Amino acid sequence: MQRVENTNVIYNFTPDMKPVQTVGNGDIIRFESNDCFYQQVLKNTDVLEEIDQDRLNPATGPVYIEGAEPGDILKVDILSIDIAESGCSAVVPGHGILPDEAKEAIVRIIPIKDGHADYLGLHIPVKPMIGVIGVAPAAADGSWPTATPWKHGGNMDTHDIRVGSSLYFDVAQKGALFALGDCHAIMGDGEVCFTGLEIPAEVTVRLTVIKDQKNIGWPFLETEEEIMVIGSGDNIEAACRAALSPMVRALSNFHNISWEEAYILSSLVVDLKISQLVDPKLTARAVISKHYLTAEGFLASL
Amino acid sequence: MQRVENTNVIYNFTPDMKPVQTVGNGDIIRFESNDCFYQQVLKNTDVLEEIDQDRLNPATGPVYIEGAEPGDILKVDILSIDIAESGCSAVVPGHGILPDEAKEAIVRIIPIKDGHADYLGLHIPVKPMIGVIGVAPAAADGSWPTATPWKHGGNMDTHDIRVGSSLYFDVAQKGALFALGDCHAIMGDGEVCFTGLEIPAEVTVRLTVIKDQKNIGWPFLETEEEIMVIGSGDNIEAACRAALSPMVRALSNFHNISWEEAYILSSLVVDLKISQLVDPKLTARAVISKHYLTAEGFLASL
Repeated sequence: MQRVENTNVIYNFTPDMKPVQTVGNGDIIRFESNDCFYQQVLKNTDVLEEIDQDRLNPATGPVYIEGAEPGDILKVDILSIDIAESGCSAVVPGHGILPDEAKEAIVRIIPIKDGHADYLGLHIPVKPMIGVIGVAPAAADGSWPTATPWKHGGNMDTHDIRVGSSLYFDVAQKGALFALGDCHAIMGDGEVCFTGLEIPAEVTVRLTVIKDQKNIGWPFLETEEEIMVIGSGDNIEAACRAALSPMVRALSNFHNISWEEAYILSSLVVDLKISQLVDPKLTARAVISKHYLTAEGFLASL
Repeated sequence: MQRVENTNVIYNFTPDMKPVQTVGNGDIIRFESNDCFYQQVLKNTDVLEEIDQDRLNPATGPVYIEGAEPGDILKVDILSIDIAESGCSAVVPGHGILPDEAKEAIVRIIPIKDGHADYLGLHIPVKPMIGVIGVAPAAADGSWPTATPWKHGGNMDTHDIRVGSSLYFDVAQKGALFALGDCHAIMGDGEVCFTGLEIPAEVTVRLTVIKDQKNIGWPFLETEEEIMVIGSGDNIEAACRAALSPMVRALSNFHNISWEEAYILSSLVVDLKISQLVDPKLTARAVISKHYLTAEGFLASL
């Protein structure tokens, strides 16, 4: 199995980024991922100023997938996320969704043991997830810092991006140019304080190209029981609109009902969920049970 | 058991509203609730203009609870929600979270059978919930149309307000003056098209006064496995801040950790969830597992 070392990092998803490795269509590959601070935070501290701000949110890659062409879809099956033995979380006054209530900067190093995070005596079951994951954007969309989520993926901070999930991206550049990083041992919807439990990890994925497929517009995720579109925007309502619009269209096409009838169906069975409220763009997802629409049905109904 | 008939309705939660009935502390009482259209929509149609707009979102009540005084908390145990055999959903162009994509007004009458809604051939398991529920506001907060959610409750459209849940309100007026209405057979988070599956119902609740209790500020809900604060605001970020702030404070007090440490804990284990995006104020909830904070712990830690 190929392995991408964690020294191969990008800080921007750009249309013309250069691949560090090439894999075949359908190959399984293992990524060493850095935490969002590039492991610069190693002890409890209130001095976050010492961190090199140019090394935040690295993503490992990018990897060129043979056969991927603009217009295809890249399917990413997340096979494993092996997190390190310790991670960290931070509060920075002025950040998070209660920026005025946070009075002091703190960092907490949080050890992981037997699948649980030990935090101040609390025993928190971990649910590892990938924060930053994406492909090279279309030239028309320009370049995106890895800290920002958009149509190419990026810092979506969506905790359903976990083992057993499959993520689908529109391929905008030859080879797709896939990268990932910024895993969290656990994070609640909203990522309210500005960080999750930030942690280095090794992530194994299978990368498969789906040909002759209409574009989705936004990243699309499949879990065991649900499918979802992940949208981002300048506020959460805009992110919700981005996520919901393709879902209503697909429901209309798949069930052969009018757009308005699909809008009603969405109001009954689609959950709009907050992913994160703290990145340069905010992220939400439109989630529906596979009882009403499968991933295959969604992709065939765009 | 006392019964409140569905002809006793209010369209505003006001500080000085007059009770229609009186119950004892701890009594179980049954409310007949109207749908949000006061049953004016009885067939598939595109002519919503014929509806009397002055009869939207009625709440049945209010009921005076003996012994309830300003400063107390009213606990509402939801014991049963028996929905009618048919409900309706509507699309109105210009409404919902995709107002520009909705081209025509439609109404769909949706029959309920054996616990499922039959919609265009789809068999949707119902999850009955209460849309409008609340108490008389404080004089300082003024009057609130039943269509609007705020600190007194109102149109929170939160699908966790269902059988088995307990809802807690700050009592602002003598007798609390409790009312409810606007049940939905099912509704997704967001209520994206502007309606859920709107349906008349009979709702049985137990009303209990908790004395000598600090104020919560916002309605607080307990389900079997979780607790949550339900906040509302002019946008969903404001609603999230309202819901999260008391949760962080309670976590800090309960676990005897600093506010900033509780902020980190929230970032790991609190989910900020969208309730609805379509009412005059928007509603979100800050949800946490009872593993980290019980209802009793929350109330003792305000």
